[in-house]
Order: sequence, then structure tokens, then C-alpha cells
Amino acid sequence: MSRLLVIKIGGNIIDDADKLASFLEMFAAIPGKKILVHGGGKLATRMAEQMGIRQQMVDGRRITDAETLKIVTMVYAGYINKNIVAQLQSHQCNAVGVCGADGNAIQGHKRAKGDIDYGFAGDIDRVDPAFFDNLLGQGLSVVVAPITHDHKGQLLNTNADTIAQEIAVALSADHAVSLIYGFEKNGVLMNADDDTTAIARIDPASYRRLKADQTIFAGMIPKLDNAFAALDKGVQKVIIGKAENIHALITGNSGTLIINQPA
Amino acid sequence: MSRLLVIKIGGNIIDDADKLASFLEMFAAIPGKKILVHGGGKLATRMAEQMGIRQQMVDGRRITDAETLKIVTMVYAGYINKNIVAQLQSHQCNAVGVCGADGNAIQGHKRAKGDIDYGFAGDIDRVDPAFFDNLLGQGLSVVVAPITHDHKGQLLNTNADTIAQEIAVALSADHAVSLIYGFEKNGVLMNADDDTTAIARIDPASYRRLKADQTIFAGMIPKLDNAFAALDKGVQKVIIGKAENIHALITGNSGTLIINQPA
Repeated sequence: MSRLLVIKIGGNIIDDADKLASFLEMFAAIPGKKILVHGGGKLATRMAEQMGIRQQMVDGRRITDAETLKIVTMVYAGYINKNIVAQLQSHQCNAVGVCGADGNAIQGHKRAKGDIDYGFAGDIDRVDPAFFDNLLGQGLSVVVAPITHDHKGQLLNTNADTIAQEIAVALSADHAVSLIYGFEKNGVLMNADDDTTAIARIDPASYRRLKADQTIFAGMIPKLDNAFAALDKGVQKVIIGKAENIHALITGNSGTLIINQPA
Repeated sequence: MSRLLVIKIGGNIIDDADKLASFLEMFAAIPGKKILVHGGGKLATRMAEQMGIRQQMVDGRRITDAETLKIVTMVYAGYINKNIVAQLQSHQCNAVGVCGADGNAIQGHKRAKGDIDYGFAGDIDRVDPAFFDNLLGQGLSVVVAPITHDHKGQLLNTNADTIAQEIAVALSADHAVSLIYGFEKNGVLMNADDDTTAIARIDPASYRRLKADQTIFAGMIPKLDNAFAALDKGVQKVIIGKAENIHALITGNSGTLIINQPA
């Protein structure tokens, strides 16, 4: 099985032109098959403000009304995606930028209304591994914007972490997949206030202990639950850390490795 | 050689949601390999106005300054391109949307400053037929936004007519290519004011006569010069007419057929 990296980057990289440029130069130099999933960052919010469109937020989550969907489609699948591709090309990394509608790569559905109507927010139904496989087989790196579609003509705003996870799982049947989540900290921290305390490795047994003694709590729990769910579905390892240290994350010299096998 | 259609649509279709939807349903139903190149339409101008960005125009041409490039990248490669792809998917036409940076498909350079500095406007250096070939070979239709890149990290705003022509020429080595230009009239008209007077067929000899007697003049001359240049470089036929009549254009029942062989 050939090795595949699925790397997700978020706002802390995307919103900082220098950090993004430096990350993309490093990404371009990584040998082998690789997929880059990017979030949106703050640009969509700034655009909406500039256009006088009010953003509705509920519990820190943006409500994707029709005008917001238009903006995120433009910013995520247009501006950010194509600028990342152009920068990778300048580093001799042949890349192709897609969203979930392209090649019917990621099909989803509009999230059902519960207490909150999230508008045009999408939950994922299926990822087509063959579409990604073919592009990777041509020597192309794939850059994925966090927009999916419902196969009925509707684009949908979709969480980039979830997209990265679903792509990693779907491609695990034919690849040894490492899923790397870049975020703003050095990894899962022993002390949430001290970025030097990243836990090197978490397996199911140590995860139970870390939750029991409340070292891991709040927002990290769904992240780790998702990581273990991906491992259970065939992903070989999940790594959480700073995308600025992508080489060290890959070689195990930075970040937190989440893995089903005990050390 | 397998048959390939390269179809260009412009603002008169893109700016009209009903016409676009109807065109895409027809496009989806066309069998065989096909590439759709779309222009930008008026949405980019409206966006710029809404954001308070002044558009500089010289001789009816937009000057692509840095802010304008950002907007056209968002609108053309993001909003328009992905909505077209999503609509095609809803008609069971598996499509993938790209710009020239994707897969290094269309490489260009910033137009040299002459009397006018057009800013980030691109002239095309090369189209990579293998990138398109591979996607078409997977049964995918390709939807192309009029943005190219210089392989040094810079995206460039590029004329959609020229992109369609260069793609048609580049793919002519391995395909029997028909290049169809959708525009606002029924074809090349005998009487510019009467849309029922489309000339059915123009070959090099009749073109010379039509120019000599000034039936064809002004803006149609560069269009037809480009069409004959494409034919000289291997494109089998060029058809000009209304994209609303795409089936009739393909079957020769509408529009103007431009071809090197006399009737």
C-alpha cells in the first residue's frame, strides 16, 4: 500500500501570508502522495463585513445563509484554493484544487434543522476515493476547499476537519494514511497553558487515563474521539500539532501521535 | 481520433440564471468528451461596487489591479465555476472545475506594459493537453475558469475566448475538435442589425469576399481571424452562435460554421 498524507490547515496558517507561504514551501518538498485540506480563516468574515452582509453566529458557529454561502464559495473555493495551488506550482509541486462538487468527490446533504437552522451547512455522505486516487496517480497533489454539494445542484459549507477525516478514511482501503491536523498549539498538552507540554503519544489506554484525571477535557475530547474513530476505520495514524513544523510532525519529532497500538 | 467539443459561454448566459440553468441541462445531455470555458459576466463588477473598489477601465477593458484580481479569482474560479459544476452534477454530468493554475493546465505570463498597463492580465504560453486528456479519459467534463498563472505563484486574469481557442488547439493533436463560441447573436450576420441573417458557412475564400464587400467588419474580424488561426493549427471546425441553441449549433442547424474546406 502506498503511503498517503492528508494534512489539514486552519485559520492560524491561512490568515498569515508569511506562515502560509512558508508552510506551502515545506509542503511542496514532502515526497510522495499528499492531500491538503484547508479551512477558511477570517477572510470570509472580512469580505462579508466589507459587503455589508451581517454574519449570524450561534454558539460560535457561523450560520450559512444564502449570501454567506456565496461568500464562502468565492473565498474558500476561489481565492484561497487557487492561491494555494499557484504557490505550490511555483515550488514545482504540481497541484490541483477542488471542492467536493468537483468530480462528485465529496457528496453531502444539508444538515437537518434541529433547534438551530444552520442554513447551507453540509454533513458528508460519501467520499469517492477513485477521484482522488486518479489525481494522485498522475503525480498531482490535491488541495481541497471545505465546500461540498448535495448532487442536486446545491453547494454546502462543510467543516474542514471533517472533510480531512472522511478523505483519510475513504482512502485507507488502498493507502497507508497519516492524517495530520495542524492547529494553533504544539499538540495535545499536559498543561493547556504551556505549549511546551505536548504529549508525544496517545493510545486508547492512555486516552482513558488522561480523560479520567481531566488532563484532557472540553474541546480536545471531540477532536480525539474523531481521531480514534478515524483509526478504527483504517487510518494508520493521526498527528496533531503545528503545521509550521510539518516536517517534524511527519518524522515524529513534534506534535502528538494518536495511534491504536500501545508504545 | 475521438471527438471533443470545446464550448465557450459568456456574460449573456452567465448573468442570466434561467438561461444558464437551461444551457447547463443541455450541455449535460451532450454525449462524449466536452470542455466548457466560461467568462466572468457582470458579477465581478457588481461585487467590486458592493465592496467599494473602483474599477479602472481603458478602451472598454478592465484593468486588473491587485484588488480586481482578487475579486475575479473569487467570482470566476470560485462562485461561477463551482456553481456550474454543482448544476452539472445535478444533471448526472460528472464535471470538474479548474483554472489554469490547476495541474499547471494553462501557463501564461503577465502582459508586458505597452502604452497601457493592464495589470494582472495574462497572455497564454502553453496549455498542457495531458492534464485535460486525463480528466476527459476518466469520463469527466472539464469546466474552465478564465484565470491562468505564471508558474511563479501569480494568478492572472485571462480572456476566456483565448483560453477556449488555446485549449482547442492544444487538444487537436489527439482529438477531432469542434470549437463553439456562444455569444449574443445567432452567428456571423449578413446584416448586423438582423439576427435572422446568420451566414451558415464561411470558408477562407468566402471570408475574403465578405471582408472585401464590408459585410464583415469591425469586431467580427478579430473573432474570425482567431477562428481561422485555430483551424490552421488543427481544430476541425469553429461554430459561432447562441449557446441557448447548443444542440442546433452542434448539428449545424444554427449559427455560423467556420471551416477551411469549401462547401
